Amino acid sequence: MNLPKPYLVRTGLDEILAGLREGDAFPPERELALRFGVARETVRQAVHELLVEGRIERRGRGTVVARPKLVQPLSLKSYTEGAQRMGRTPGRLLVTWENTTVDAELAESLRVSPTKPVMHLERLLLADGVRIGLESTYLPLHRFADLVDDFDPTSSLYAAIRARGVVFGEATERIETVLPSPREAALLETTTAMPMLLLNRRSVDIDDAPIEVVRALYRGDRVAFVATLTDG
Amino acid sequence: MNLPKPYLVRTGLDEILAGLREGDAFPPERELALRFGVARETVRQAVHELLVEGRIERRGRGTVVARPKLVQPLSLKSYTEGAQRMGRTPGRLLVTWENTTVDAELAESLRVSPTKPVMHLERLLLADGVRIGLESTYLPLHRFADLVDDFDPTSSLYAAIRARGVVFGEATERIETVLPSPREAALLETTTAMPMLLLNRRSVDIDDAPIEVVRALYRGDRVAFVATLTDG
Repeated sequence: MNLPKPYLVRTGLDEILAGLREGDAFPPERELALRFGVARETVRQAVHELLVEGRIERRGRGTVVARPKLVQPLSLKSYTEGAQRMGRTPGRLLVTWENTTVDAELAESLRVSPTKPVMHLERLLLADGVRIGLESTYLPLHRFADLVDDFDPTSSLYAAIRARGVVFGEATERIETVLPSPREAALLETTTAMPMLLLNRRSVDIDDAPIEVVRALYRGDRVAFVATLTDG
Repeated sequence: MNLPKPYLVRTGLDEILAGLREGDAFPPERELALRFGVARETVRQAVHELLVEGRIERRGRGTVVARPKLVQPLSLKSYTEGAQRMGRTPGRLLVTWENTTVDAELAESLRVSPTKPVMHLERLLLADGVRIGLESTYLPLHRFADLVDDFDPTSSLYAAIRARGVVFGEATERIETVLPSPREAALLETTTAMPMLLLNRRSVDIDDAPIEVVRALYRGDRVAFVATLTDG
């Protein structure tokens, strides 16, 4: 059978990967082009696919086999719990912590006046020290102004919210894929060509009062989501 | 304040979009570069972001404001129900329907012998006639061999499965972002640079017996997922 070259290259690369372990060097493009007898461009496209899938990653001037993706359960558990369940050490880096006014739509989601400031917390999410996500959280100031007194922004925000006696009711999440802005790509140490998973979440407490609106951007090569569904 | 140019361009494009309606023409890149006083390349990057986000789309030689994304609930309801809830007309096109042997991992997921064939059904998912997804379903042949007698592959597979008395128990879904292969891009009438949402699902019945393993690829510019989460 005369199979198309991109297919043969991809199958060949999958076979190479099957014989390698995490951290092993991945062959350079020119060597692969020679081995498969195809144009360098055909190899480049297939290698780019593997990079976006997070199966290989650039390290220094070379390419190595990547760690498996961090699999985040879609749940109201915090990022900390999700990462720990996978045996990764979670971490956070504070980027922005400010009180700011927001647009009418966001103000309505938080049920606050658009003329009043809300709390904005922007943090990088780390797994074993690697930047995997950028989380931008908006909180109604009248409920959470006192976070500024004792909240450590490198720790779990959900734990701090729960410690204030707030009980999460439900959250609505929307998941899509986007490209990062130059600023987001720089913060996540990747390029504007790397597809991201964008998760928009709005959480309310058991009295249906808004807790937070979150815009979280996860590197598509580093993170996957899982959910368990039941009929109903 | 001296804001970076990509930010100014993106903000300017958002303002233009706010004044336009679905189907309206979007200004050409050279006109935008002139208007914002930036390099053509800066505009091209921002326009590419909007294309990937599905806010604009190519139509003929021009670019127009796109329809909102189809929002699919993460649930065991069929694609048909999800599309109809959004007022879109669902459709399907059969690409492949075959009995085939599969790799050891997939055979184990379906709890069949790797030497025995399974049923493979590959269909394009349409919304109002537009190709938005490519769904590849694997079914244990011993349970569903008789689908070949009466199943219309342009109709709901879940409805046909339920009509056989099978009751869905639960499904595990994994969601990530990938780039399409050249074949997948061609079937979905897009390019290999368009990020996709990849959904891998395994469904079992109420006795925990496998029903299906699905690999569904959705155009990132056309589809978003939503889920409602509760604490527990």
